[in-house]
Amino acid sequence: MNEYVEVEGKYRVICDDINKISYFLKEKDFREEYRVVEKDIYYNHPCRDFSRTDEALRIRIRKYIGQGIRKTVLTYKGSRKVLGEGVKAREEIEVELNNWRKMNNILLCLGFQRVISFVKERIIYRKRDVEVTLDHVYGLGRFIEVETRNRSIIENIYSSLSECLEPVNKTYLELCLETQKCRDDFDDS
Amino acid sequence: MNEYVEVEGKYRVICDDINKISYFLKEKDFREEYRVVEKDIYYNHPCRDFSRTDEALRIRIRKYIGQGIRKTVLTYKGSRKVLGEGVKAREEIEVELNNWRKMNNILLCLGFQRVISFVKERIIYRKRDVEVTLDHVYGLGRFIEVETRNRSIIENIYSSLSECLEPVNKTYLELCLETQKCRDDFDDS
Repeated sequence: MNEYVEVEGKYRVICDDINKISYFLKEKDFREEYRVVEKDIYYNHPCRDFSRTDEALRIRIRKYIGQGIRKTVLTYKGSRKVLGEGVKAREEIEVELNNWRKMNNILLCLGFQRVISFVKERIIYRKRDVEVTLDHVYGLGRFIEVETRNRSIIENIYSSLSECLEPVNKTYLELCLETQKCRDDFDDS
Repeated sequence: MNEYVEVEGKYRVICDDINKISYFLKEKDFREEYRVVEKDIYYNHPCRDFSRTDEALRIRIRKYIGQGIRKTVLTYKGSRKVLGEGVKAREEIEVELNNWRKMNNILLCLGFQRVISFVKERIIYRKRDVEVTLDHVYGLGRFIEVETRNRSIIENIYSSLSECLEPVNKTYLELCLETQKCRDDFDDS
């Protein structure tokens, strides 16, 4: 089986000057693709505990900055499976919706519970098949995610910016639940 | 409280000549609004029995005949509540989706079970606030539904067509489950 497997590196930005990262990316010919503000609402299942089964159900409301476009997506994530050293995969199914409030209400009627919601600003940079995302999670801090098929690219970025980055293994959901610091300031209109 | 309450009459068409109904409607100045083919897929909840709680969860895929438009909707229906003599209401929340297969897969991953699916052709007629729907439910037969705020209109239509109509209290879901005759012939492409 020669499936396409994405590798992902995720880091907390620990230096004060976050411009270091954007300068570095521009120097390496990364191009800013777009900016978004995303609100994520996570739900728990009416009769099983997603924190035990390692599943997730999320409504994401995304606004594209400067474009006035808005997109709402319902996402199911299955439990993480280790495919190989450092490579994890999880089933992910996404469906686009025309109204997040109605989907939220359907989920509540079905017995799903809202667990947490938080907002982040994202800047997405790309260079060929490498995607770098700079996240500002409100209340939690700044993070960088690197996605590519080539693990050495992730390692190079990390070693070039090592004084600025600290590896993170947890999802934002897990970090927000742990710290209870995440904020949900979002203009729903 | 002076809420807008729709009254609905539902009848099985028992005469062989279904043109009687369309002639009658045209004579009474009803206008054909549009024709659709709908596939409905019903689900049961992972940990409660919707047939006991009188709830419903449905994906409906609707094709507008002759227009090439397609619409997919997820609908939750709460249990029926009797508001007054002959007037029932149930909460109904609808959200539009861009992909029914993905929503179906999310529901299956969440433990929902597919109960039944069936297809019907609908012709929707209207005259002011009165909506008359002529349904051909594949495998089950032909039905007519009248929706309006004015109960006497429903009674008039029924008495004018009484040799052709037989009142029905059950939903198509209930009739399909009971008879197991409904068919699901639908071009999903």
